Amino acid sequence: MTHSISQSRRSLLTAAAAGLGLATSGGISRATVPSCLRGTGDLGVVVERASGSVLVVETSRRTSLGRVEGLGDLSHASVVFSRDERYAYVFGRDGGLTKVDILNLSVERRVIQAGNAIGGAISDDGRIVAVSNYEPGGVRFFDAGTLEPIAEVPAIDRYGARSKTVGLVDLPFGRFAWSLYDGGEIWLADFQRRGNTPMLTRIFDIGRLPYDGVVTSDGRWYVAGLFGEDALVRLDLWSERLHPERVLDGYGKGEAPLPVYKMPHMEGWAAVGDRLLLPAVGRQEVLMVERDTFRSVATIPVHGQPVFVVARPDGRQAWVNFAHPYNDVIEVIDIPSASVVHRLRPGPAVLHMEFTPRGHEVWISVRDANRIDVYETLNFTKVTELAAGKPSGIFFTSRAHRIGL
Amino acid sequence: MTHSISQSRRSLLTAAAAGLGLATSGGISRATVPSCLRGTGDLGVVVERASGSVLVVETSRRTSLGRVEGLGDLSHASVVFSRDERYAYVFGRDGGLTKVDILNLSVERRVIQAGNAIGGAISDDGRIVAVSNYEPGGVRFFDAGTLEPIAEVPAIDRYGARSKTVGLVDLPFGRFAWSLYDGGEIWLADFQRRGNTPMLTRIFDIGRLPYDGVVTSDGRWYVAGLFGEDALVRLDLWSERLHPERVLDGYGKGEAPLPVYKMPHMEGWAAVGDRLLLPAVGRQEVLMVERDTFRSVATIPVHGQPVFVVARPDGRQAWVNFAHPYNDVIEVIDIPSASVVHRLRPGPAVLHMEFTPRGHEVWISVRDANRIDVYETLNFTKVTELAAGKPSGIFFTSRAHRIGL
Repeated sequence: MTHSISQSRRSLLTAAAAGLGLATSGGISRATVPSCLRGTGDLGVVVERASGSVLVVETSRRTSLGRVEGLGDLSHASVVFSRDERYAYVFGRDGGLTKVDILNLSVERRVIQAGNAIGGAISDDGRIVAVSNYEPGGVRFFDAGTLEPIAEVPAIDRYGARSKTVGLVDLPFGRFAWSLYDGGEIWLADFQRRGNTPMLTRIFDIGRLPYDGVVTSDGRWYVAGLFGEDALVRLDLWSERLHPERVLDGYGKGEAPLPVYKMPHMEGWAAVGDRLLLPAVGRQEVLMVERDTFRSVATIPVHGQPVFVVARPDGRQAWVNFAHPYNDVIEVIDIPSASVVHRLRPGPAVLHMEFTPRGHEVWISVRDANRIDVYETLNFTKVTELAAGKPSGIFFTSRAHRIGL
Repeated sequence: MTHSISQSRRSLLTAAAAGLGLATSGGISRATVPSCLRGTGDLGVVVERASGSVLVVETSRRTSLGRVEGLGDLSHASVVFSRDERYAYVFGRDGGLTKVDILNLSVERRVIQAGNAIGGAISDDGRIVAVSNYEPGGVRFFDAGTLEPIAEVPAIDRYGARSKTVGLVDLPFGRFAWSLYDGGEIWLADFQRRGNTPMLTRIFDIGRLPYDGVVTSDGRWYVAGLFGEDALVRLDLWSERLHPERVLDGYGKGEAPLPVYKMPHMEGWAAVGDRLLLPAVGRQEVLMVERDTFRSVATIPVHGQPVFVVARPDGRQAWVNFAHPYNDVIEVIDIPSASVVHRLRPGPAVLHMEFTPRGHEVWISVRDANRIDVYETLNFTKVTELAAGKPSGIFFTSRAHRIGL
């Protein structure tokens, strides 16, 4: 169930870079042997989808520290961090769950926990890692230290049919939430009071075919997108009685219904103060709504169909990337005026953006240029580039301290 | 200007504990030799005022890792962290600025940079540490790596008189803000465009005798308390034109004017969504106001004169401690209902509270019991106790990732 992995060192990275045809000119990082003691607050990982590896990076001097390989199929991979910010849990599409030691640049543990998986989460106390599975549909829970399984919750709906699970998030106090795609239910698991046996709460009649879900950063509002309806559904988790509420009618298709081939990931929503910015489905627009009511505040025309709408940490701007064929561009929205104030063209296939924790810089994966670009956010100046093999998601350790990621 | 300090080890801690008459029974931590590699996302420091030391702690297993001594006068001491979460910068009242290596449990650098100081800050890029000084009045800036001075801004008001400086905070993009107590001005320093020579902006006519200042966590609103007036003043830092706006008339004294002997620290304000909770001055009340207008939403009666009103990270509750003679108690406010829902009595002289980053536990300094108590926040159960010598402020490394601390 587990296997070891070679540690990434200078020679490895160089070899890998050469094999991927990466440039080695200015701004290209080098792997270094990890020093005995170093802080982990400025570390991160970059998913290299094509090669099944992650690049470990640090944001203080903007360098790569090394590459960790052998992580399997990393399409749609996501990452969460241990609360001490030493370990990255990498969730692969093939059901692989890998615990990467980002200080030691090694695989600490690895399990293949299902046949087909989508996303994971870690409890606020750092004790439990959860993985959302398509096949077999359900959520599995693992000891974050050992990756030993501690609980499994098959997603069997009220009619007895098994569902894919989607939209798995952590909630405060040892809880998790997810949705049943086929069954149209939202489930909550509570480990706070019951040790390794979660107390389950099931919400019915949420609408048809939830395809993804998010929770606001206070852990209050769980929102699921409904593929089978032209709307979203949400739950107020602070309420004594949990009842699903349909919001944002017309979100799914809009005024001119079109076949929807790809729904935007709901992780790509920006919550800023009492506003929520979300990518419109199938339209070249970003929607700004009131966070507590989902009433529309503004519709912001943008360059293409938005994928991620990421808030700068101070909440003054949101940066937006786009679906093909407009995916070489990023637009910057000024939130107070609800308007686009800047456009960048980093290069082919901009897949993800991650801000440094206090927002002075942003890291951008430019997949088809095999490059990470780092920009100053204030003046949009490129600071440096780092070589990476077909980079997709970028994840910094400060995520360890945030709710609902 | 610098001096070395002995490293804290098991023997030292034991000796110190014995000297302070600390209990050594269950729940008491032991210092351990730092391991070669460990993450720093779960570390913190506890200020031990009487002995001029800090205790380095970790919140995963809730233990002390060791004590670092020789930090001078730590009354009103505060702490910020390097962006890699390895170093704690400790600002002493005597003008001492100490860079503590919390992995190695040692003093990395130490300077006496003024005769009398109050508080400090670190820039978002981690490059510059700033200290606010009473004597001589002004703000000094240091290289965060070496503690070499890089700039000094004497606080000389428009009439040529020197002021004490108060309310120093970091702002996004290499900026800082502070207030001139005697001169009644707010100053902004911008290092983003000018390297080591800050561009200064001065705001006049803010009102008389600002005694402290805070900035909201988005870096937008800088608010100063006015000792010489019965109100606060604030600046909208997102505005093109900075003009001071008087808000919350009656804050300073209230309906029944009383002599005000001690103003609450403004760090002890809780910002939650579109609400701000602040301790009333001289009254047994917590005020809830609208964040953007400072209009009153509710006045919440509490057990004593509040000192700190600290929001749980999810923003559902705020925990409040009190001034003497009610300082053995903590009350918990439910924010949606604006009411007190729980009262704890941890022990004599509860000075500070710090939540774990995602809020599942809270650490409480009980000074006169020489103890840190750790509580589960959901059910108010005490999880453990740690010995500490007259503990005051508790600071966890996740602060490194937040704006305005």
